Amino acid sequence: MTTKPQGEPVRDELEFRRKSTYITDRITADGFGDWPVEAGRYRLVVARACPWANRAIIVRRLLGLESAISLAACAPTHDSRSWTFGSHAGDVDPVLGYERLQQAYLARFPDYDQGITVPALVDVPSAAVVTNDFAQLTLDFSTQWTGLHRAGAPDLYPEPLRDEMDAVMQRIFNDVNNGVYRCGFAQSQQAYERAYARLFGALDWLSERLATNRYLMGGSITESDVRLFVTLVRFDAVYHGHFKCNRHKLTELPVLWAYCRDLFQTPGFGDTVDFLEAKQHFYLVHAHINPSGVVPNGPDLSNWLTPHGREALGGRPFGDGTAPGPAPAGEAVPPGHGVV
Amino acid sequence: MTTKPQGEPVRDELEFRRKSTYITDRITADGFGDWPVEAGRYRLVVARACPWANRAIIVRRLLGLESAISLAACAPTHDSRSWTFGSHAGDVDPVLGYERLQQAYLARFPDYDQGITVPALVDVPSAAVVTNDFAQLTLDFSTQWTGLHRAGAPDLYPEPLRDEMDAVMQRIFNDVNNGVYRCGFAQSQQAYERAYARLFGALDWLSERLATNRYLMGGSITESDVRLFVTLVRFDAVYHGHFKCNRHKLTELPVLWAYCRDLFQTPGFGDTVDFLEAKQHFYLVHAHINPSGVVPNGPDLSNWLTPHGREALGGRPFGDGTAPGPAPAGEAVPPGHGVV
Repeated sequence: MTTKPQGEPVRDELEFRRKSTYITDRITADGFGDWPVEAGRYRLVVARACPWANRAIIVRRLLGLESAISLAACAPTHDSRSWTFGSHAGDVDPVLGYERLQQAYLARFPDYDQGITVPALVDVPSAAVVTNDFAQLTLDFSTQWTGLHRAGAPDLYPEPLRDEMDAVMQRIFNDVNNGVYRCGFAQSQQAYERAYARLFGALDWLSERLATNRYLMGGSITESDVRLFVTLVRFDAVYHGHFKCNRHKLTELPVLWAYCRDLFQTPGFGDTVDFLEAKQHFYLVHAHINPSGVVPNGPDLSNWLTPHGREALGGRPFGDGTAPGPAPAGEAVPPGHGVV
Repeated sequence: MTTKPQGEPVRDELEFRRKSTYITDRITADGFGDWPVEAGRYRLVVARACPWANRAIIVRRLLGLESAISLAACAPTHDSRSWTFGSHAGDVDPVLGYERLQQAYLARFPDYDQGITVPALVDVPSAAVVTNDFAQLTLDFSTQWTGLHRAGAPDLYPEPLRDEMDAVMQRIFNDVNNGVYRCGFAQSQQAYERAYARLFGALDWLSERLATNRYLMGGSITESDVRLFVTLVRFDAVYHGHFKCNRHKLTELPVLWAYCRDLFQTPGFGDTVDFLEAKQHFYLVHAHINPSGVVPNGPDLSNWLTPHGREALGGRPFGDGTAPGPAPAGEAVPPGHGVV
């Protein structure tokens, strides 16, 4: 996602509200939509920096959709026209031929004036955005793309759990995923303090839930874990300082810290995380929060690979399925950008 | 101290350098100086927010100079004309009759154009600043004001230790006390990274030194401990986020965290610390670093009073002396500003 055009602070209330206007087309298996599931037809445009895109990267990887849906990663920083495909002028995406993601939005709607956000699924033949509806997009990976899942793909959105899971994910979205932005983009002390109370209230609730459950919905990983992970993994590197989410660091919340390391050390999670690009994105793009443009050196990341002890809670991370293999060639996080 | 006029970044090198022009008059016991030691004659002007002033507050308290030298505390925030004696226009210091500390500087030098800093010692009869030389001022409390020390005052600057202690304090000043400012006021990524390396290099050196010594110079508290304490105690509340000193929080550095809690729980240290005013000062005065003016709610402070275990290293905190009593009436940190 981009944080600027899509999330203009609502000034009269001095509180950050995320705009929720997305292109809500869906790619479906049943053939009734305009966009059919089809291997090789769509390109997932992400930025490794972005937590909302990280969600799609992880789900695609866990389900083994890499060969069915190709990946384009934008540079970590962007200007007022949003995400670019490279760090240098003239860099273009080799498949779409575009310099800017905006071009794929304009190919779809010539007068598109909403946020140019990642993740976006682009139809390669028309080089136009199909959807940027990040919340639906990953659920559709689970439910519509089943025919193209890898052997051993886990069920990330199990039918019997959906009601409870939707409620859990709703609170995670409001108070945590978006909650950190509500802290950081608050325009008044009061708006900040309200957001801070909700964020840490939710983290306390999650700590309690995860004290005895290895994962949010029980013994196996679901999409709810992916959604919580992408915010927790950026917590100390970005939100704690930059967004003033500083009651505690993640490292000081023992249950969540162990839970997050457990996921981090699971194939498909930690190996998708680019700490350097995440820091560069937030600290450089939000010049109104960080005018100096200095990107912090910390935090020390050597503790991410320490034992977490969560196996003692039992569980089968991938249920009846198996762990994914390593990231495809060309998609690995560059050395020095992660914990190694 | 004030951080603005006294510490203008040297722009051509993009590195923060603290100006070191102070009024270096001394108040001495021997009668040869212009300013004799005299009970009731001088007023120590501080701001609880400020680490350099906190040093003077602690030393005055440990030595029991409260009845000999009165105290005036400025409000935590200030404008371009620097520190004021109250938060509201028209608030004046009851002894000096001034609204602004600047008036005491101008009473001394009508065209004074250097930084208006705390701590400052003001001669009450002339209502003019005697000295703002923060480094000398506290050493003089120890060595020149001995006749007015309380019974049981510790020796904070012991003659046989001075050579080594001066060297230790020099590195603490360069890399830690001033080092955090060098991180936060760096004008380039390179200048920041140099300062960050020096800061955490020094903290590692101090951790090693303090792993087996209860205090910096051995078994008893000296001024070197006071100097280190005032920066460490503000580390997580201010410097970690605001100045990007974020390799670790103090709470993640086990030796320094235990050492700092040990001091915090010692009379004369923690009971002088106003966390709220410290946060307000840094986050509100440095609008160039924090344009929103939002002051973080965190960190959680409930852990400052937990057992530190440092008694196991032995030592006699006050040497042949004793602990000071509680702060005089009117000087206590307001409820809600500290850890309770």
